[in-house]
Amino acid sequence: MKPKLSVVKIGGNIIENESALCDFLTDFAAMEGYKILVHGGGRTATRIAEQLGVPAQMVGGRRITTRETLDVIVMVYGGLTNKNIVSLLQSLDCNAIGLSGADGNTIVSDKRPVKDIDYGYAGDIKQVNAHAVKALLESNMTPVFCAITHDKRGQLFNTNADTIASEVAIAMSEHFETSLYYCFEKKGVLRSIEDDNSVIEHINTEKYEQLLAENIIADGMLPKMHNCFNALQQHVSKVHIGLPGMIVGKERLFTTLTL
Amino acid sequence: MKPKLSVVKIGGNIIENESALCDFLTDFAAMEGYKILVHGGGRTATRIAEQLGVPAQMVGGRRITTRETLDVIVMVYGGLTNKNIVSLLQSLDCNAIGLSGADGNTIVSDKRPVKDIDYGYAGDIKQVNAHAVKALLESNMTPVFCAITHDKRGQLFNTNADTIASEVAIAMSEHFETSLYYCFEKKGVLRSIEDDNSVIEHINTEKYEQLLAENIIADGMLPKMHNCFNALQQHVSKVHIGLPGMIVGKERLFTTLTL
Repeated sequence: MKPKLSVVKIGGNIIENESALCDFLTDFAAMEGYKILVHGGGRTATRIAEQLGVPAQMVGGRRITTRETLDVIVMVYGGLTNKNIVSLLQSLDCNAIGLSGADGNTIVSDKRPVKDIDYGYAGDIKQVNAHAVKALLESNMTPVFCAITHDKRGQLFNTNADTIASEVAIAMSEHFETSLYYCFEKKGVLRSIEDDNSVIEHINTEKYEQLLAENIIADGMLPKMHNCFNALQQHVSKVHIGLPGMIVGKERLFTTLTL
Repeated sequence: MKPKLSVVKIGGNIIENESALCDFLTDFAAMEGYKILVHGGGRTATRIAEQLGVPAQMVGGRRITTRETLDVIVMVYGGLTNKNIVSLLQSLDCNAIGLSGADGNTIVSDKRPVKDIDYGYAGDIKQVNAHAVKALLESNMTPVFCAITHDKRGQLFNTNADTIASEVAIAMSEHFETSLYYCFEKKGVLRSIEDDNSVIEHINTEKYEQLLAENIIADGMLPKMHNCFNALQQHVSKVHIGLPGMIVGKERLFTTLTL
């Protein structure tokens, strides 16, 4: 039987709130078994970019990663946020090791192809080096990934943290029975966006298609759900979406997705 | 017989110069055997601090690491500089992994004790976790340390890169036959500061005491030499001081220190 592994993704809303972050990290440190954390960015990068006079470039509502923006992202996600999370986890006796995809060549990307829009230094994941990540886990270390990857040719890329989480979970499924957790500010996938307690507790492929047909899944949730079912189709055992406390059973209400 | 390990420290002058950095990293990638890189900071942190309106606090000519300064250092050394070096080494087929002392709990420090001056968030190294660093080396990874450590209680510290290099070399000497290289902008320890070619090629303890008595060793070299002999007294095999090219034998003139 394969050993169990939990891949946990936390978003910017948790990272930016000091007390929410401490609560979450305490729970994460207490999680049993092998585990991996993936963290998104948050508003600090936007604030630092403004202070440094780096303009936000948007095309069609989408953010473009210019060279200057990438430098800020590498500073904030890869430096400030990642190292602070690692040092807090260490204080909680979780042997964290902070990583970008360049570190140990763990995540290789290609620059997102230019069709209508050139997204700049945005990377689409090509390969996760499961062997390197497994070596760290087996050395009793807990990888903490920021949302940065590289192309193995000397270029770093800004990369979506939700996608990093699902691609890492998929790659690790060869060696581990892997569960994927998306922690965010809602209790789960909601039937009605106005009712925080309208959590759909279980979604399988059939239910997913039904919800899509009914237009129940809202805009922001669409790419997240796509990542989830992509992971399930590639041997990730289970995906959970909900409040951070779900990772240690503090929350009874959350969404579980299976094939 | 113990396997060989090289610990190489590069200073800010090399990091700030794109072409010098590329030359150095090409040489470092080509070095055979186990190796570890330690990099200092450079002027980027000062520039970013100025742009962010973080004032440089000096007391008695010494820089004080305030909370705001520490954040900039963690962003620049731990993020921008470290990840760029790692991704460049990866492009040269060196399987680099970037680390602060918090990552894998590799380097634990205490806040520098307050005597006359409170240096703020400056850490004095207490322990290097040789076991963790060895695990990375044996997983075919090349650790790249920035000049940041932690106290295992959730606090990061700014820490002297020369000292990180010597303390890492000392700790690894239990498991490896360790050589320590200090790369800087001079060809070695100079007999006359005005003559770049007046390199003293070999310094042992007796010669060191003689040079100290003659006041030949200049101000900036004093703490570096102290680190060197401290390392030699604690089982580091050899220490070399000189231009970066010495690490692959491109430079024939450099200073070698032995007990």
